[in-house]
Amino acid sequence: MAYELYYWPGIQGRGEFVRLALEEAGAEYDDVARRSGGMAAMQRLMDASGTARPPFAPPFLKDGEVLIAQTANILLYLGRRLGLAPRDEAGWLWAHQLQLTIADIVDEAHDTHHPIASSLYYEDQRAEAQRRAGDFIARRIPKYLGYFERVLEHNSQGDHHLIGRRVNYCDLSLFQLIAGLRYAFPRAMTRLEPSFARITALHERIAARPRIAAYLKSARRIAFNEQGVFRSYPELDAAN
Amino acid sequence: MAYELYYWPGIQGRGEFVRLALEEAGAEYDDVARRSGGMAAMQRLMDASGTARPPFAPPFLKDGEVLIAQTANILLYLGRRLGLAPRDEAGWLWAHQLQLTIADIVDEAHDTHHPIASSLYYEDQRAEAQRRAGDFIARRIPKYLGYFERVLEHNSQGDHHLIGRRVNYCDLSLFQLIAGLRYAFPRAMTRLEPSFARITALHERIAARPRIAAYLKSARRIAFNEQGVFRSYPELDAAN
Repeated sequence: MAYELYYWPGIQGRGEFVRLALEEAGAEYDDVARRSGGMAAMQRLMDASGTARPPFAPPFLKDGEVLIAQTANILLYLGRRLGLAPRDEAGWLWAHQLQLTIADIVDEAHDTHHPIASSLYYEDQRAEAQRRAGDFIARRIPKYLGYFERVLEHNSQGDHHLIGRRVNYCDLSLFQLIAGLRYAFPRAMTRLEPSFARITALHERIAARPRIAAYLKSARRIAFNEQGVFRSYPELDAAN
Repeated sequence: MAYELYYWPGIQGRGEFVRLALEEAGAEYDDVARRSGGMAAMQRLMDASGTARPPFAPPFLKDGEVLIAQTANILLYLGRRLGLAPRDEAGWLWAHQLQLTIADIVDEAHDTHHPIASSLYYEDQRAEAQRRAGDFIARRIPKYLGYFERVLEHNSQGDHHLIGRRVNYCDLSLFQLIAGLRYAFPRAMTRLEPSFARITALHERIAARPRIAAYLKSARRIAFNEQGVFRSYPELDAAN
């Protein structure tokens, strides 16, 4: 039976980390909210009165009777089933740890354009956004990318993957993080990326994998836009 | 062998969610950074050159050869070992999902006093903090607590626990969240809590559990203070 993915239909957002894992594995899945009636189905599952274990927010995944929310938790569930995570406990905990760290920088990237409140327009927090983006570019991107670069460097199986010698869902998520940061902060990333050569190389290798390359060219890949987590606001890219 | 917990010695912070699980289970553990030489030991483990799978940040847990970071990931690991989580896969994923949602509101509580940058003093982002705290109190606390109240209400085994009929690490974490929110936003919580009677009752029951009650009275429980995640700044409590 096909997996059912529930996520906002117009953006890559956090759902994209799940889509990339499903695409790389060639798994059958239904991107429910992108088809007619899908948004209502998503809302029903979020309604606690009809769901024993309701999600707080999208994305969430339905696999038969199992309903799982929180992006990293979905990948924890899928990783072993799709062959995209180590099978030993220490290995899958390490993969999950890396994914949670990627989730942290994704949250911070979101807050560069919404430092005050998700409920307000960007235009109503633009000044604060410039301050926050300046710190994000100057301190946070280098700190996080420095960490992942070192993880690649110290992988005893070689620096082509974050873990071991086979592609895993964290590699796919790191690819997506770099794609998003390049979209949101092209000037800053042009300047910063030469210090993180292993990450850049991993990004290129993931983009070239046959299923990922086909996905990126397909209509299933939603373009980056200014409703998602990564947004192109030139004034924020320059804010450092 | 005792667990080794590594976390900043002067604050409850995110480490407290791990401490509460260890305390409730009566597990032997060493709060490493609180003893002489402990900070240097913590720093060594964070240094990628000496650690195969380095943490990005504290807290982290060492259990023999296993080193695990990210608060929710540590609880995922400990939960089943300490008898504080369901044993079936769907159950422990559900517990982890709830914990990740608690982690999200904890991050947002932190950002009420640091909406611009963790690297700046509170005093240098006080105006932005007031704006963010206002939204947190008006919209985010009610949204999250409404969610957890519904989860308690819809637990088929009764509303005394978030999951099933036995205490689990999410119950302990929800206790800690409420304690922290009351410390940081006493006025707001006095007004809001009557709408979340099941959560308040759970907080009282957890506080009264023998091992937790003993822990809260002990010197091992660090007092809330203005270096932690939850901070008492009256101007933020009034910011709504």
